[in-house]
Amino acid sequence: MSTSVQETVPKRRVAIIGGGLVGALAVLYFAKRGWQVSLFELREDLRVPENKKNLSHRSINLALSARGLSALKRISLGLDDKILEHVIHMKGRMIHLGEGKLKSQLYGVFGECIHSVEREILLELLLNTAATFTNVKMYFQHQFKRCNFDDGILEFENKKTGNPFQDSADLIIGADGAFSAVRTQLMRVVRMDYSQEYISHAYLELTIPPRVNDKDEEEFAMDPNHLHIWPRHSFMMIALPNRNKSFTCTLFMPFENFDALKTEDDLMEFFRKYYADSIPLIGEDQLKKGYFRNPRGSLMSIKCKPYHYKDRAVIIGDAAHCMVPFYGQGMNCGFQDVEMLNGIFEEYEISAVQSSDKLALALEEFTKRRHPDAIAICDLAMYNYIEMRSSVVKPWYLLRKRIEETLYWLFPTRSIAPLYTMVSFSTMRYSEAVQRWKRQGFLLNVIGVSILTTVTAASIWIGYYRF
Amino acid sequence: MSTSVQETVPKRRVAIIGGGLVGALAVLYFAKRGWQVSLFELREDLRVPENKKNLSHRSINLALSARGLSALKRISLGLDDKILEHVIHMKGRMIHLGEGKLKSQLYGVFGECIHSVEREILLELLLNTAATFTNVKMYFQHQFKRCNFDDGILEFENKKTGNPFQDSADLIIGADGAFSAVRTQLMRVVRMDYSQEYISHAYLELTIPPRVNDKDEEEFAMDPNHLHIWPRHSFMMIALPNRNKSFTCTLFMPFENFDALKTEDDLMEFFRKYYADSIPLIGEDQLKKGYFRNPRGSLMSIKCKPYHYKDRAVIIGDAAHCMVPFYGQGMNCGFQDVEMLNGIFEEYEISAVQSSDKLALALEEFTKRRHPDAIAICDLAMYNYIEMRSSVVKPWYLLRKRIEETLYWLFPTRSIAPLYTMVSFSTMRYSEAVQRWKRQGFLLNVIGVSILTTVTAASIWIGYYRF
Repeated sequence: MSTSVQETVPKRRVAIIGGGLVGALAVLYFAKRGWQVSLFELREDLRVPENKKNLSHRSINLALSARGLSALKRISLGLDDKILEHVIHMKGRMIHLGEGKLKSQLYGVFGECIHSVEREILLELLLNTAATFTNVKMYFQHQFKRCNFDDGILEFENKKTGNPFQDSADLIIGADGAFSAVRTQLMRVVRMDYSQEYISHAYLELTIPPRVNDKDEEEFAMDPNHLHIWPRHSFMMIALPNRNKSFTCTLFMPFENFDALKTEDDLMEFFRKYYADSIPLIGEDQLKKGYFRNPRGSLMSIKCKPYHYKDRAVIIGDAAHCMVPFYGQGMNCGFQDVEMLNGIFEEYEISAVQSSDKLALALEEFTKRRHPDAIAICDLAMYNYIEMRSSVVKPWYLLRKRIEETLYWLFPTRSIAPLYTMVSFSTMRYSEAVQRWKRQGFLLNVIGVSILTTVTAASIWIGYYRF
Repeated sequence: MSTSVQETVPKRRVAIIGGGLVGALAVLYFAKRGWQVSLFELREDLRVPENKKNLSHRSINLALSARGLSALKRISLGLDDKILEHVIHMKGRMIHLGEGKLKSQLYGVFGECIHSVEREILLELLLNTAATFTNVKMYFQHQFKRCNFDDGILEFENKKTGNPFQDSADLIIGADGAFSAVRTQLMRVVRMDYSQEYISHAYLELTIPPRVNDKDEEEFAMDPNHLHIWPRHSFMMIALPNRNKSFTCTLFMPFENFDALKTEDDLMEFFRKYYADSIPLIGEDQLKKGYFRNPRGSLMSIKCKPYHYKDRAVIIGDAAHCMVPFYGQGMNCGFQDVEMLNGIFEEYEISAVQSSDKLALALEEFTKRRHPDAIAICDLAMYNYIEMRSSVVKPWYLLRKRIEETLYWLFPTRSIAPLYTMVSFSTMRYSEAVQRWKRQGFLLNVIGVSILTTVTAASIWIGYYRF
């Protein structure tokens, strides 16, 4: 096909519902592939200065890691380099053991880091980049109402004017989050297996402000290059650094424990018992205010299948799989969805100009390939909650971790890699990471038991233990 | 409190959404308890003769068993006796083995039966009885749109006039089926765990008409006192008798198998291979017409929790738990929901006159008590699908069944009862039935193995087997 013909054929149109991080990245990928892209977002455009004050600040900080960076890099718009200028590197967990004792656990044996990033900055970068494409139209304050997938008609309400708005598209992408309306529409036309499960824990955010040092400069009140954790078995607190030298703390515990702290005295007694070192950092007054004023959020896990309908629609990001935040993979996984979908479009040679019989196959392949990965990371995120609030301080966990890391340090190309490394510092499929982890689990237990036996035998022999 | 005071106090109002079998029975229970009841149903009133022609006949026949009968009896309106005049007793399964061989498996060792009943007749009985209560109002062709649970405001659309309609209630009961709109509203105010799972099989209904005998009278073409099954491992057909001496056959098989039968020749070849004895009964022409004209239905399982919101709302029946139809328990379970809810209202002394702090506790207790039962029967229904299409012809299954039945026949009051008996011929909690079944499974295997070993040893000893 000659270029001149291509230019006269109208471009195929994709409607992307949801202008959060994943939707905005999808806009860029489709724009780059040459599609005519329309983005519809319910909220206001956060790039307009007066809208910033309306933003809800209630969200767990984001940890950008290898998968997210890979998706930002692959599109070759320099997004990865640009965002890395605005992040704070976190090289490990800082465990707050109680009585002010601290213990650093590095994430990677070769100094790999995850990156604390502010949602707004990343979203602004993506939307600003989208605005540079002439084949992208962005509609803010447009609420998606319903659609007919087969004829591609979409209905919205313009929340500014209250008027209905209609558009049409050849392909509809649902990136509209955990409570996805596109997914609800999809359920009417496909037999979708779906599950949502709330965990019994809620979360509440508090702030550790910057402290003023001797030179009257603001500085971080704790080491900024760690993700801070106060593991307390059935509950925990974490803190991630912000660029303004504050930390956002998130308290996770069962709803009934939150309810049990009824008075300021209850709260202070609880904090003095479990999070004593954080009280001077947060400030007693701010702690009381924050605890009783800030909203409590609930956390859930969503799995579903399939993600697509014929050659007409596909859901990505939280709309397709919503996970609890304990592996810091929600955004990374959503970004990888976009990268994988793009890769499949390349494999199937899906054109932005001509309709293709292969599009239905490509979308089906996306469901087939991505579903086991989504299940794997949703389950790992749930598992990591136990690890973060409890396992990280247990000797057996620490011994296994040490062995695993030593083996990986000795043989970095072999198949033994710590789970955290596979999830956060590689782009290997989540499902593969889980399979490897299960395989090597047995081996690690064997080595662990051998070491313990040897140490015990040696201790008895040298008379360390006396019976 | 004196009677005169009670009479001047306005009655508490309950709105029941969904006038199917479960909703209609709930109307009766609440009416009998003295509540002011409003029933809202999307469809037309089937008691009006001209509406009968609009009824969709696409539904698996209903098998009424002990739990359903118990709920009909408990309310003391004579419903159980009235409906038993219109049922056809089914005392067992008639297995169609191929090549026209038949084998009867009785359901109960003491001649217990399940009862084939037509949905319309049962529903008409319930609605006619509801109409005799002065404290019941029924609204047909009213589509539930949304509600505010806390202030009890309900919004509907009158489908006849197209006008909106508003009502209010102290308590809202969602009995609006698998795709419950009340449940959707409930999900907005409670953290509801929810899952829906489709099975890979579809169903399609066919009819075996009455045959004309020598005396020119219509009669059943097969034994009417059995539920007929053609088990074919990965698929099956069943047939239930109707009062007009026809049978409704339901073909269950994977969607792709349905799709594979593209032509009439494909269909006939398939039927000659697997369901040969049914061809003359259905009639070749009617088989072809029915197969290619009748709709295919999909089947799914729904589980959720909790069922209630404060003292304001509760969901029952398919809205709370939807099961695949293979244990014939959908309606029975829904009826038992109503009976159990009523029992809890009695325990908590919930008045139809005064609001009570205990109502929230009673609804919470309903979730707590009913949820494990719903999970148990949803899982059993899935399990029974395998039993019906495959296990029923396997020697090990038959041996275990024989032992179980013999033990139950010998010691009917002991704790060993066949699972089918516990589910269909008792009102014990589903969750308890499953627990007992799991406990006795081990024992049955031990006895089964002992018998097999003894028989084999004896056979060798008497020279039956020669090596």
